[in-house]
Amino acid sequence: MVEKTLNDLFLAQLKDIYFAEKKIYRTLPKMAKATKVPELKQAFTAHREETQGHIERLEQVFEMIGKRPQTKACEAINGIIAEGEETIEDFGESASIETGLVAAGQAVEHYEMARYGALIAWAKQLGMPKAASLLNETLQEEMKADQLLNQIGASKVDKMAMTKMAA
Amino acid sequence: MVEKTLNDLFLAQLKDIYFAEKKIYRTLPKMAKATKVPELKQAFTAHREETQGHIERLEQVFEMIGKRPQTKACEAINGIIAEGEETIEDFGESASIETGLVAAGQAVEHYEMARYGALIAWAKQLGMPKAASLLNETLQEEMKADQLLNQIGASKVDKMAMTKMAA
Repeated sequence: MVEKTLNDLFLAQLKDIYFAEKKIYRTLPKMAKATKVPELKQAFTAHREETQGHIERLEQVFEMIGKRPQTKACEAINGIIAEGEETIEDFGESASIETGLVAAGQAVEHYEMARYGALIAWAKQLGMPKAASLLNETLQEEMKADQLLNQIGASKVDKMAMTKMAA
Repeated sequence: MVEKTLNDLFLAQLKDIYFAEKKIYRTLPKMAKATKVPELKQAFTAHREETQGHIERLEQVFEMIGKRPQTKACEAINGIIAEGEETIEDFGESASIETGLVAAGQAVEHYEMARYGALIAWAKQLGMPKAASLLNETLQEEMKADQLLNQIGASKVDKMAMTKMAA
């Protein structure tokens, strides 16, 4: 068999996260629609714009390694998003939907953080500092998005769910 | 319809992570078997023992809320683990398998960190500091496992993959 290298793994993972970002881009409007909290709606909408930028950065990295941008079905993000959709279905009319949406968003961010973390380490190993730096810009935005969800969760949403429970 | 509360969301998420931990417990031996790096084998084996503890802590939390421990199929962890198995299949005989295994392990840890983070916040909101503290013990172990994989990746595995590529 042909020996697979770190280059192959990098490319496989790049296709995986390219699929994931595109799926996230299509899903964020559903999440924005499902929330009644303006801050959360705004966070999902703004993150969708950022996600467009993440897709474009990935296309730049494909170009850097001389490959055509290509997706590879990412079972992980499909599963994470399926769970988010299940939450919207099960809790969509209830007070705790907002809390569920924050958690769903954070699960997505954490998945991306893990994948970008690996890609950045490999890009450095493979002597592609420019690719590493581009991917790191995205990682920083994913981390900020996660922190923002944390803040919205702690300051608005969880308290709201509790108030409604007590009412 | 019956109004769903934060209690319902907490219970749903508890069943989800209970399923995930059990699945991880069954999967870790496959990951340990797939690596030839002793440090990584040891990390997966030790984390399996910790995972048994995580399962038991979840059972304690079920007891605290007066519910029978029950799983709920977690599409997210199924997807994340399916991707890890695909990596073993595609890269199992190659130099970069070790790098792929580290990344697969980190994707699992990040998923758990997101889920435990949410559960801890909700347990506090719901006035269950003891449950929050138990879940936080697990979160700390997941974070340590992620950091250990980071170290093994940076110090051993990625360099090894590069050496083999150059050879």
